[in-house]
Amino acid sequence: MTASTALLKSLETLLGPEGHSTDPDVIAPKLVEWRGRYRGTTPFLAKPRTTQEVAQLVRLCAQAGAAITPQGGNTGLVAGQIPDGEILLSLERMRAVRALSPLNDSMVIEAGATLHEAHVAAEGVNRRVPLSLASQGSATIGGLISTNAGGVHVMRHGMMREQVLGLEVVLPDGRVLCALDALRKNNTGYDLKQMFIGAEGTLGVITAAALKLSPAVTSRVVAVVGLASADAALALFHRARHRADGLCAFELMNRQSIAMALKNVPGLREPLAIAPPFTALLEFERCGSNGLEEGIEAMLAEAMDDGDILDAAIAHSKAQEDAFWKLRESLSAGHRTGEPQANHDIAVPVSETPTFLEAAQREAQALSPGARIVAFGHMGDGNIHLTVMAPEGAIEFPREAVLRRMHDLAAGMGGSISAEHGIGVERREELTRFKDATAMAMMRTLKAALDPHGIMNPRALVSVE
Amino acid sequence: MTASTALLKSLETLLGPEGHSTDPDVIAPKLVEWRGRYRGTTPFLAKPRTTQEVAQLVRLCAQAGAAITPQGGNTGLVAGQIPDGEILLSLERMRAVRALSPLNDSMVIEAGATLHEAHVAAEGVNRRVPLSLASQGSATIGGLISTNAGGVHVMRHGMMREQVLGLEVVLPDGRVLCALDALRKNNTGYDLKQMFIGAEGTLGVITAAALKLSPAVTSRVVAVVGLASADAALALFHRARHRADGLCAFELMNRQSIAMALKNVPGLREPLAIAPPFTALLEFERCGSNGLEEGIEAMLAEAMDDGDILDAAIAHSKAQEDAFWKLRESLSAGHRTGEPQANHDIAVPVSETPTFLEAAQREAQALSPGARIVAFGHMGDGNIHLTVMAPEGAIEFPREAVLRRMHDLAAGMGGSISAEHGIGVERREELTRFKDATAMAMMRTLKAALDPHGIMNPRALVSVE
Repeated sequence: MTASTALLKSLETLLGPEGHSTDPDVIAPKLVEWRGRYRGTTPFLAKPRTTQEVAQLVRLCAQAGAAITPQGGNTGLVAGQIPDGEILLSLERMRAVRALSPLNDSMVIEAGATLHEAHVAAEGVNRRVPLSLASQGSATIGGLISTNAGGVHVMRHGMMREQVLGLEVVLPDGRVLCALDALRKNNTGYDLKQMFIGAEGTLGVITAAALKLSPAVTSRVVAVVGLASADAALALFHRARHRADGLCAFELMNRQSIAMALKNVPGLREPLAIAPPFTALLEFERCGSNGLEEGIEAMLAEAMDDGDILDAAIAHSKAQEDAFWKLRESLSAGHRTGEPQANHDIAVPVSETPTFLEAAQREAQALSPGARIVAFGHMGDGNIHLTVMAPEGAIEFPREAVLRRMHDLAAGMGGSISAEHGIGVERREELTRFKDATAMAMMRTLKAALDPHGIMNPRALVSVE
Repeated sequence: MTASTALLKSLETLLGPEGHSTDPDVIAPKLVEWRGRYRGTTPFLAKPRTTQEVAQLVRLCAQAGAAITPQGGNTGLVAGQIPDGEILLSLERMRAVRALSPLNDSMVIEAGATLHEAHVAAEGVNRRVPLSLASQGSATIGGLISTNAGGVHVMRHGMMREQVLGLEVVLPDGRVLCALDALRKNNTGYDLKQMFIGAEGTLGVITAAALKLSPAVTSRVVAVVGLASADAALALFHRARHRADGLCAFELMNRQSIAMALKNVPGLREPLAIAPPFTALLEFERCGSNGLEEGIEAMLAEAMDDGDILDAAIAHSKAQEDAFWKLRESLSAGHRTGEPQANHDIAVPVSETPTFLEAAQREAQALSPGARIVAFGHMGDGNIHLTVMAPEGAIEFPREAVLRRMHDLAAGMGGSISAEHGIGVERREELTRFKDATAMAMMRTLKAALDPHGIMNPRALVSVE
């Protein structure tokens, strides 16, 4: 599966001097996972300029039996983008907006463009791509689709899958699947594009996508609410959903997550006058009509009267909105302290979130007495980014046991061990513990049918066996 | 591929007297397409009671090499549900609500339940399944998922695909794929359920589904608007989308479609004081807050001032809402007169709808001078149900030529020849004219990988070749 000198010569000829590199200094940044957890190797960095070049490159690799690792913005969290001797494929030179239609609310954009670039293009015609996440300045359209990225607005707008109207994909034998139609409805056979969304580059290379655009938002309300418990948060979530249209984010933060961010990230402030066990950040959006804020104020006042919430603050300026969100966005950095910890990307049914948090606390303490639980995430989707940290000052920490126990807990509630980060290389072993055996077999059947020689990102997700 | 006597004996034993029928009188209604366009045959009607019975039935058929046609509510429009000698599989005895969770906004329901039954179950906990279509009293959950049904609220809530959180599927060899998790996020490998949505029963039998629930709607506004042109309708669509949040239906009706309904369906009334070239029906919905109607009134007043619309009426009672919708829902019956006609289920980019309507008018006249164009549909999705009718009193009509020309027109604009009805048996030949060759090949690869003996609904959509 490694590349021969003859293959590398052919690729050099195909791609030209601008289209490849073997210079270690150029390649180096792409071989290191951004948190430094993984380091890889590659004999060749390919940077094709067109879909046809990608197709020819894949065909040459297929003929030579050489494997390919595609890499987008290198923001992945499960090491699916780091090569281990494979040819490294970057579409950084393919980032054009091929078409932009405000009247069809659609955009065709190449896979190497960043999400930020897509946002800017959409804003230029008073539209938006309603996917928002911390890494949007680096994460690419191809990577976001291949990992079915989530983020903070999933509860209203869906994951990346829901933004995709069509795809152009180079298949593992070099054929080009052109399914770039920008239609809302198209029931003409299997919806093939779905196969590649979330497939982590194991079934082909996404070269371009037709994306849905949404109307620009004209009014927005951001509020933080203090809560006595996760149960109270669940009640507030349903109240907000039913009584005030336009809820687009419901982020939960436990005290520990805020405390660590306040301690370790400069420039943050406690958002409420109290320091409640749980804090929720709510965002509402609306197009056109006014009256958004009044409805939300009334809803929160009612929740306060009913004793469901402890305190609440609505942002009255852009600066305040930004400050509320900045706190939420600093939570990850807050506990990246170098101390021993186990990180999870759990999803459970939304209704089970409080039960999961309680059980996680209990079980983590049993495995590591004094452990600190940093819990936050997209409660509106049942998606908790849970970190169990060693007790302060502790050096010993049963990381693997904690990871497995938390995964067992989530799975026991009908949950998922990877809500939005994917499987990559890091979670492959855990996946086999939980995935339905028939599902695993069907995944291998599909991989074998579409990539019989196993050249596409062969170490990620699933292998031909 | 036909069933042997030995196989039928085994199936009888498996299913018991309640679970099957060979009585022609019992089977007859299931062999006739509801408009009478197709008639089929079957040696055996299977009515299993449990997923395990479905699995055993499929395994027995697979071993015997006998093909199966699954049928839901028999409301399909492309003959995918009518057997031609295959064993007929009905899940009418599997219609239980297995789980209902208002706090997770989800429901697990068996495939034989009707959409109406799902609506009732959701309403019981103050929630809803936001898919609405004319046949909801008969159409089943399994059929709706297998055909990725659409309807009038797709522009806000998506097609059936978007309602599905999880599926239970019996694969063509009798294995059961259990992917019934009711999670909003679950990036643990290929999203296998997507394969079966819209696959028209060719890859397996859907036995149960986990569906999303949405909050009940607390305010709703229905309006009809008279328009001088389809261009004006497109402008109104975008105005409504950007200026008045909550647009959930935007249905367009040309004069001919309304005129024929008024003539042929009793009890209808012209909705406006004028008889404009185009009429749009708009529906808005909102949860909780009031003020919905004021915003919409202001938006329409502005459109009137700008000269974009000719007239408008907002329903001020449930009776008026129902009357507006009844007109829209009577349009199909309006032109089902027995006169020669060609019916289409076209989608084009929303922006191309006016251009398509103009071109369709021109081309139809060229093929059949004096032809009458009945055009209506879900303009918010670019989905037009276009019928070209022979000139009044004419007997000769170039139906096939018209069909093909309209499909060419749509495809030439990046459109689809089947927006929501699917391919079934009826559109298979047309499909091969338009579908990307690589896509057709990939469909066959997937069919061969998952149903190598071609026993699942073998005449629909795609075959192992």
